[in-house]
Amino acid sequence: MLVVTLCALTAADAYAQAIPDSVRQNAMLLRDKALQDSTAYDIVESLTMEVGPRLAGSAGDAATVRWAIELLTSLGFEHVRGEEVEVPHWDRGALSVSITGPFLQSLVATSLGGSSGTPEEGIEASVLRVESLAELREKSLGEVAGHIVYIDHVMERRKTGGGYSASSRIRSCGHVVAAERGALATVIRSAGTSTNRIPHTGSMLRNSVPGEIPGVALSNADADLLTYQARSGEPVTIRLHSTARNMPKALSANVIGEIPGVGDKADEIVLLGAHLDSWDLGTGAIDDGAGIAIIAAAAKLILDSGQPPRRTIRVVLYANEEFGLSGAKQYASKHADKIEKHVVGMEADFGAGAVWQFSSRVAESSLDIVDELHGLLEPMSIERGNNEAYGGADLSPLRKAGMPILGMTQDGTNYFDYHHTAADTLDKIDRDDLQQNVAAYVTAAYVAANIDRDFGWLPKDTKPSGTCAAEDD
Amino acid sequence: MLVVTLCALTAADAYAQAIPDSVRQNAMLLRDKALQDSTAYDIVESLTMEVGPRLAGSAGDAATVRWAIELLTSLGFEHVRGEEVEVPHWDRGALSVSITGPFLQSLVATSLGGSSGTPEEGIEASVLRVESLAELREKSLGEVAGHIVYIDHVMERRKTGGGYSASSRIRSCGHVVAAERGALATVIRSAGTSTNRIPHTGSMLRNSVPGEIPGVALSNADADLLTYQARSGEPVTIRLHSTARNMPKALSANVIGEIPGVGDKADEIVLLGAHLDSWDLGTGAIDDGAGIAIIAAAAKLILDSGQPPRRTIRVVLYANEEFGLSGAKQYASKHADKIEKHVVGMEADFGAGAVWQFSSRVAESSLDIVDELHGLLEPMSIERGNNEAYGGADLSPLRKAGMPILGMTQDGTNYFDYHHTAADTLDKIDRDDLQQNVAAYVTAAYVAANIDRDFGWLPKDTKPSGTCAAEDD
Repeated sequence: MLVVTLCALTAADAYAQAIPDSVRQNAMLLRDKALQDSTAYDIVESLTMEVGPRLAGSAGDAATVRWAIELLTSLGFEHVRGEEVEVPHWDRGALSVSITGPFLQSLVATSLGGSSGTPEEGIEASVLRVESLAELREKSLGEVAGHIVYIDHVMERRKTGGGYSASSRIRSCGHVVAAERGALATVIRSAGTSTNRIPHTGSMLRNSVPGEIPGVALSNADADLLTYQARSGEPVTIRLHSTARNMPKALSANVIGEIPGVGDKADEIVLLGAHLDSWDLGTGAIDDGAGIAIIAAAAKLILDSGQPPRRTIRVVLYANEEFGLSGAKQYASKHADKIEKHVVGMEADFGAGAVWQFSSRVAESSLDIVDELHGLLEPMSIERGNNEAYGGADLSPLRKAGMPILGMTQDGTNYFDYHHTAADTLDKIDRDDLQQNVAAYVTAAYVAANIDRDFGWLPKDTKPSGTCAAEDD
Repeated sequence: MLVVTLCALTAADAYAQAIPDSVRQNAMLLRDKALQDSTAYDIVESLTMEVGPRLAGSAGDAATVRWAIELLTSLGFEHVRGEEVEVPHWDRGALSVSITGPFLQSLVATSLGGSSGTPEEGIEASVLRVESLAELREKSLGEVAGHIVYIDHVMERRKTGGGYSASSRIRSCGHVVAAERGALATVIRSAGTSTNRIPHTGSMLRNSVPGEIPGVALSNADADLLTYQARSGEPVTIRLHSTARNMPKALSANVIGEIPGVGDKADEIVLLGAHLDSWDLGTGAIDDGAGIAIIAAAAKLILDSGQPPRRTIRVVLYANEEFGLSGAKQYASKHADKIEKHVVGMEADFGAGAVWQFSSRVAESSLDIVDELHGLLEPMSIERGNNEAYGGADLSPLRKAGMPILGMTQDGTNYFDYHHTAADTLDKIDRDDLQQNVAAYVTAAYVAANIDRDFGWLPKDTKPSGTCAAEDD
């Protein structure tokens, strides 16, 4: 049971407090309990050890849907269900990449998600090295046609993970820009910071491609091998062989569980999101086993408090975030008539590093709530960020519709050493950091679900996304 | 030209100094020049980028012999030659390892050097997990026969690299102890500290094996997956398929170059050693491209000083250190009649970390020379170690014969994150640390080659090595 603090409100409180004392007190109790609670670790351990890789459409994906329904049921949530989602299904197959001249080297590489394979005899061609999409866009068909394009951009390491946007843009669109100019294949330096000769995968955008060409990523160390030879001045040739292929679409599911609200606000929803799928190279511990664990453990603490929230807390474990946001789109479409009932969304999809900043995307008139909420997070070394929170990829359809967002910014300094690589495994998760995340999420979720006021609603964002046009670089 | 300091010796100097002032001054000049000299980096860059992996007997090994002869010739050494060495030739083939129950997981693994393959249909069997060789030795045939033995020893990270001896003992002998008890295969946790899902290879001892059984190493993260399941209490089964095989022996070479001594001590040899071969997974930057670079660059500095040493400085780049010390044994045998002409040996085969300790293995009566020499190294943050230097694997036949050793102990804290893995690539080498190594080697080599006295000779070590008997664990 939560301790409900009964105290007379002073005049000052009545004016100043967006979060009533009772809510504040309970939130602090939940926060402090979360810091000692190993539920999240147990969840991500079970998922990574017993299920492991779970690429959309794969057998692991189907196993994860079953695992997730069992998890949310066993934790005691209500209305646990899988909402069917059609997902693309891509198979990595086998890949070999080698430099065939001037100096023979076998390269450690991985196919990018959605890549087609090569012809059976492989592709061997000379390499055209560029350092950016902009440099590639300046090349003519005559310069590119018949070559394998090598995009050699070194990702920058940052606490915010901000270096990833330029690198992932190259991964998403490099093959499009190259194919438009007649290239035979694209080879990129991994969109990651690892120095451990483990390449980084991730999705290629499939729209507006004039012809499908294979796309692969080299580990940073292997990119160094290729760059050295490319800089030698001699012509460099590469040989690629890949059996990657796109398969027929498959069925997966968004797995959902709830703590139903009680009272006049019961039809309003506080959404906690993470995603079920992972890339196939690792066991998906930091992406996004940790996210599932954080939000499920946070909701479980509220459930166990024995006092139902006023608003419904909905845990949504999305299908196929990695390869096209299938689950996020399906959720927004299926729940279109109730989108404005989502008073706020929080997503956990940036690993298990400690939260160091709390940002928001709420109506100006609700900023006082966020500031007070920040006061409850500050003792955990969490700074107040701005009011331009991104929230996460799976929330983007709802965010674009105007749903407010609360964002827990995690330390991403080392995230891209492991993200989307074989090394995304359980040992990368620090228990204390994970528990600090749960504490931050439970505090915010509890407050959001129990205060009188809400976070407003924001203007629609109608900017198109998902194109490889130069103006969107 | 070296500056020769001409100064009158005082009475105190005459008694106290094992290293004359002129030698001391020149050694300090060489030391300081080495700290600014990029020759070593250029050498290891060329080897790793242009040749790459070079497992004994492979095409890369033959290419490395050619590269090394060209290197030593172009650096200006004399008597450059390859001394033929017969080497074993093992082919890794392809390997797949998976847990087939209770929870299906594909494991990232690598075959251990010398491992046989599996039958074409693979091997599937239940797992017997032990934590040490001692625990395995206590098991009866009835407990082990028909199982795949999993030896789950976690290597300890230490500055000295000392955790490797227990782990590499398991790698060398695990299959012997398991095969004696009827096991079908051995699976070990990698003898390395990497958390990057890159497994660690290395040689299995082939003697006294009652039947050849395959041996593979799992990355630490994959060992965690297996350990989790083994601890669940349910029977765990593994499936292995490997096409590893031992091939006919091949020819390689010890590549040697010299700076001939001039004068009465010209027939005495100061030996600088490193090894040419590498495991096949990485490009052999830290093991042992760095060693080749350090000793070749150190000798080159002495050569370029324009003043020939009194003793001959011999650079020996050994064939096949990794898989049975073929080159070291061949060198000791071929030069058996002149072993006592080797006044001291120094080997560089522990990566490119900064030297933090200077140890020795010299006659008691020569310790004063070593102590004075240490005075020249101390400004580079190098401590004085003991008089039990190991020297390195390639020096072991000469060390056992009694040759004195000077040992530069490098910082090994991170060495086993990369050693014998795919991640042994050039980016692991820090230029400043590499140059500090060259400075330490050139200082010691110059002094050893130019002083009047020598380091004595030590008693023969007749202890047998290379057995998997319990008493040698």
